[in-house]
Amino acid sequence: MATVKLWTDDEAAADPVVARVFADIRATRKSDFVNNFWRGLANHPDLLERTWGQLKAVMTGDSVLGPVVQEMIYIAVSTANSCQYCVHSHTAAARAKGMTDAQHAELMAVIGLAAQTNHLVTAMQLPVDEAFLR
Amino acid sequence: MATVKLWTDDEAAADPVVARVFADIRATRKSDFVNNFWRGLANHPDLLERTWGQLKAVMTGDSVLGPVVQEMIYIAVSTANSCQYCVHSHTAAARAKGMTDAQHAELMAVIGLAAQTNHLVTAMQLPVDEAFLR
Amino acid sequence: MATVKLWTDDEAAADPVVARVFADIRATRKSDFVNNFWRGLANHPDLLERTWGQLKAVMTGDSVLGPVVQEMIYIAVSTANSCQYCVHSHTAAARAKGMTDAQHAELMAVIGLAAQTNHLVTAMQLPVDEAFLR
Amino acid sequence: MATVKLWTDDEAAADPVVARVFADIRATRKSDFVNNFWRGLANHPDLLERTWGQLKAVMTGDSVLGPVVQEMIYIAVSTANSCQYCVHSHTAAARAKGMTDAQHAELMAVIGLAAQTNHLVTAMQLPVDEAFLR
Amino acid sequence: MATVKLWTDDEAAADPVVARVFADIRATRKSDFVNNFWRGLANHPDLLERTWGQLKAVMTGDSVLGPVVQEMIYIAVSTANSCQYCVHSHTAAARAKGMTDAQHAELMAVIGLAAQTNHLVTAMQLPVDEAFLR
Amino acid sequence: MATVKLWTDDEAAADPVVARVFADIRATRKSDFVNNFWRGLANHPDLLERTWGQLKAVMTGDSVLGPVVQEMIYIAVSTANSCQYCVHSHTAAARAKGMTDAQHAELMAVIGLAAQTNHLVTAMQLPVDEAFLR
Repeated sequence: MATVKLWTDDEAAADPVVARVFADIRATRKSDFVNNFWRGLANHPDLLERTWGQLKAVMTGDSVLGPVVQEMIYIAVSTANSCQYCVHSHTAAARAKGMTDAQHAELMAVIGLAAQTNHLVTAMQLPVDEAFLR
Repeated sequence: MATVKLWTDDEAAADPVVARVFADIRATRKSDFVNNFWRGLANHPDLLERTWGQLKAVMTGDSVLGPVVQEMIYIAVSTANSCQYCVHSHTAAARAKGMTDAQHAELMAVIGLAAQTNHLVTAMQLPVDEAFLR
Repeated sequence: MATVKLWTDDEAAADPVVARVFADIRATRKSDFVNNFWRGLANHPDLLERTWGQLKAVMTGDSVLGPVVQEMIYIAVSTANSCQYCVHSHTAAARAKGMTDAQHAELMAVIGLAAQTNHLVTAMQLPVDEAFLR
Repeated sequence: MATVKLWTDDEAAADPVVARVFADIRATRKSDFVNNFWRGLANHPDLLERTWGQLKAVMTGDSVLGPVVQEMIYIAVSTANSCQYCVHSHTAAARAKGMTDAQHAELMAVIGLAAQTNHLVTAMQLPVDEAFLR
Repeated sequence: MATVKLWTDDEAAADPVVARVFADIRATRKSDFVNNFWRGLANHPDLLERTWGQLKAVMTGDSVLGPVVQEMIYIAVSTANSCQYCVHSHTAAARAKGMTDAQHAELMAVIGLAAQTNHLVTAMQLPVDEAFLR
Repeated sequence: MATVKLWTDDEAAADPVVARVFADIRATRKSDFVNNFWRGLANHPDLLERTWGQLKAVMTGDSVLGPVVQEMIYIAVSTANSCQYCVHSHTAAARAKGMTDAQHAELMAVIGLAAQTNHLVTAMQLPVDEAFLR
């Protein structure tokens, strides 16, 4: 179904870079589960390693926003970019990290409102108010 | 510059619906400033009233996310939708409501990361892991 | 400002394909005005000729929708694709062809509503109802 | 499959806001069918009520465009925003309201043409012609 | 599943324009296979003919980029536009024309990087450096 | 004009991470010019460092595509994402690395064609042909 091979654990074990990244994903997340995103990226070990390094730094390191807000921002971008897998995976992640139904409901309200006003603004081609320019 | 007329205060005062909405914007925000978005929407008083009603309910009513997180989600959607005016106006709003430089920096890190993984996922056409489906 | 040269009338006259297309644009539109889109495409005469041929067939040939509805659909797509030049040029074209303020207002209402529900649907990842599948 | 629960009629009946909105959807559309969009939004009764109020006002109220043109604009935006559910549901709605095959064919021709010229314009970064600015 | 009928070979044979285009697709590609894109466009024979003419000119004519690079650019645009069918069909086409795993891996790396920096740039609303303007 | 401060060379010199990255950009590109993208990212030194590390690895390291094809793919994604700064900067970069007018013209033809067929496919909601699934 995917346009690339999804690497099994056995295949991952045979490539030193992929094996190292998969092990770090498991250790960092304290879970044996490695989702399809990483199994697809394994086709390009360098890209896998860079992408995991970046995601680990942003999403699992020190954070002023906290994990739930980070995931909600991730859902917002993924929705606007129409990425189905990403909406599913980050909504699941947000819930696992503690997002409540009330937070999800408000997230959707803001996403919907933003999309509407984004399109209205673009259709009107409004000049930016001086007050908004620093 | 815009594709529609931007209503002046005098023009707004002459239309009962527009006058009422502008007055409510000023009262709700405790500021005399009415930005171009509303001055453009004034060309369609019904749409102006519905849009303001919706924005007032979502962005100024009770909130579990709080005003800064709401604005950061707004920035995330506006960025993915490439809306220049919206990025400017909501970044200004987020700062006015207390967004710190550290929060803005992390917001940008999450937006950039999400965009990257959104595109990688779409290019690989990954099936959603069973674990992510409720 | 553009990433390509915008051809002047003198430069256009010196290339037989560009000269022919510019002449046909003027004859078809009954106007001497050739807008920047065609002056930019002139850098690639074959692409200019194919694109004009396509636009002429769709937008100036027999139409069941009529010129105003065609231009409103063009504005809708251009807005969702965040194309500033296109929003400006097709809003001007729609007005020149007779779009009223009331039609423009309703166009904006539909665009804004569609954008909102598009994003809500994507965020919820809704399965298509059986009733909608033929 | 969805990221939210799709409310059944029994669940909807137990929430006064949801029950009221579902009843109004049925009365307005003169049909017992309530599609998944509303069943998903029911998780956030306030958002459900606001969204239905807005859609009812725009799509079922007085209209200068008429229902078929409104739905075609909806399809155009939904296509550019890559919303699968929305393309399906609004193409079905457009047909139910009388869109002919010839209208659908011309709609697709305009959408395809607009997308092409949107991208060409963005790639060339063309300045807006003075003639298009009011 | 589609919003339009997918024409069978028998149906195609009964329409002179569709029959001619299908025959030219088969002759040009030296293959009996006609994919769903053309079977859907057959509902609008004129659009089918124009679209095939354009694709034939761009993708099968003289090329300075070569077929693999052309298909990789096609994948890049289709990914950013979230077109699932297009990502599948053009990845298959690229591989059939000789794209290696290493090329695909690097293509993904560039797409992911571009998406990330696109979003960062839009979120920062950066002015274009003078050095980039010709 | 930007939503963030653009760091001057003096400001950059005062932060050890930013100073190190700016020095590496200059050494890698063999040019004193540091464009606004990096001056904006400097507000978040960690993000600056990660983003430069990624761009350096992808765009200046070993490549099977070569620098001109890489930049053309970058332009394709930036166009579909409507990023003005990115289209300008990467078109300038592509030309500096040797992209010819003929290559740029064909790039535009492919981008325009892909956008058109992307939208047509989405509007028709075509099922992926079995032949395209591996």
